[in-house]
Amino acid sequence: LPLHEAARNLEDDAAVLQVGGETLVVTHDAMAEGTHFRVGADLADVAWKLVASNLSDLAAKGARPVGLLLSYMLGDADARFLEGLHRVSTALDVPILGGDTIAASGPRTFAATLIGRATHVPVPSRAGAQTSDAIWLCGRLGDAMLGFEDPDSDHAAAFLRPIPLLDEGELVAPLATAMMDVSDGLLLDASRMAAASNVGFALETGAMPIADRARIHECLSWGDDYALLFTLPADTVPPVAAHRIGSVGP
Amino acid sequence: LPLHEAARNLEDDAAVLQVGGETLVVTHDAMAEGTHFRVGADLADVAWKLVASNLSDLAAKGARPVGLLLSYMLGDADARFLEGLHRVSTALDVPILGGDTIAASGPRTFAATLIGRATHVPVPSRAGAQTSDAIWLCGRLGDAMLGFEDPDSDHAAAFLRPIPLLDEGELVAPLATAMMDVSDGLLLDASRMAAASNVGFALETGAMPIADRARIHECLSWGDDYALLFTLPADTVPPVAAHRIGSVGP
Repeated sequence: LPLHEAARNLEDDAAVLQVGGETLVVTHDAMAEGTHFRVGADLADVAWKLVASNLSDLAAKGARPVGLLLSYMLGDADARFLEGLHRVSTALDVPILGGDTIAASGPRTFAATLIGRATHVPVPSRAGAQTSDAIWLCGRLGDAMLGFEDPDSDHAAAFLRPIPLLDEGELVAPLATAMMDVSDGLLLDASRMAAASNVGFALETGAMPIADRARIHECLSWGDDYALLFTLPADTVPPVAAHRIGSVGP
Repeated sequence: LPLHEAARNLEDDAAVLQVGGETLVVTHDAMAEGTHFRVGADLADVAWKLVASNLSDLAAKGARPVGLLLSYMLGDADARFLEGLHRVSTALDVPILGGDTIAASGPRTFAATLIGRATHVPVPSRAGAQTSDAIWLCGRLGDAMLGFEDPDSDHAAAFLRPIPLLDEGELVAPLATAMMDVSDGLLLDASRMAAASNVGFALETGAMPIADRARIHECLSWGDDYALLFTLPADTVPPVAAHRIGSVGP
């Protein structure tokens, strides 16, 4: 496919686009009923997660949201979706730029494009981790899984209404050699960062912030936690609350 | 909903966003199987139309494409979609910035966000038509309808692979008092422009370029032709091939 150079060969979380004197970060994600959310899920939660998961990609780039476009398949509970959209766009400060509503049968699908503004250039990518860097994690792993399993538990919000780490991403971006959000499980995402950076990651699972240590492997494999994974030179102290979870080797 | 001021209150074809000294035009459209394209349609045509219909919104703003993000629901004939996407992005010069693929059951849905760059500011809107302006149409009406009805006819391409009028939009944008693309039928879209401009439109149907004059009302009501509708001061000659189809009144 004819890729824009800003697409970073589709190997990163977002496109990084120079426009005039600014740097935009652009990301697009879709969600489908039965795949990304349960049949019968509260669409207010779905709207929140659709926007928040895209914002997490901006966070990993140290970007701030400019605005949102989305496509919405009409159906039941449209008012709930609108309520969730209103809430997330207000709470996370991402105004709506436009979108499309469509009528269709079958499982509901929704898509969102987030446009953000980089707060620091160069914008971190997955590909910059250097041998002897330290590997850091901001956020805890496993809460979304526990919230998925028990919607009545204290963990429910972690699954249904995740909070993207925008402030943390902005603080880390000027220092990080590589950064990404952990949306598909730490083990998979860390392996992606190591591969993109052409280095090896030595992870210390004992040092990781885990929601349920008795189920550590599941917590490290399950997604949806929207933590930030980043690497820093060994002597750099992260400017946010974070755990050192390993080191980069050759 | 908390709208970005660039959203133009969601009453225009696209958002118009100031970034770094430049003016971006951003639009988002989705298509669903059974609603926007037939079950069994060639997905190469669907990919073309998804991109081309979004580009038509850019054309109506006098904008040039910067790049494309899209969400793609996996299923049958994925290779055909990719082939059509490759073709449209090459032919219409719109590189791919990113996107998402999702797995889901049910009718296929696809969405695209187009980012463009304005070639002229202020960017035309639907809302600027002035009393005594002339109303112009670039493009012909009814070909898409005829192509939909008879896929073996010469009109088929007009329905399946429309060509957005990007060159024409760029030439007209500096002169137009209002402009939009005709995607939902001339009668409906002209009424929208008149309402947005708070004026009345006197249309002369005899002057309109129509694919089948015996079915003029259908040709004026059917969508998908992606013509450009614009208004100019009465003494302004359009810089593109166009038909004068009426005049603006109070």
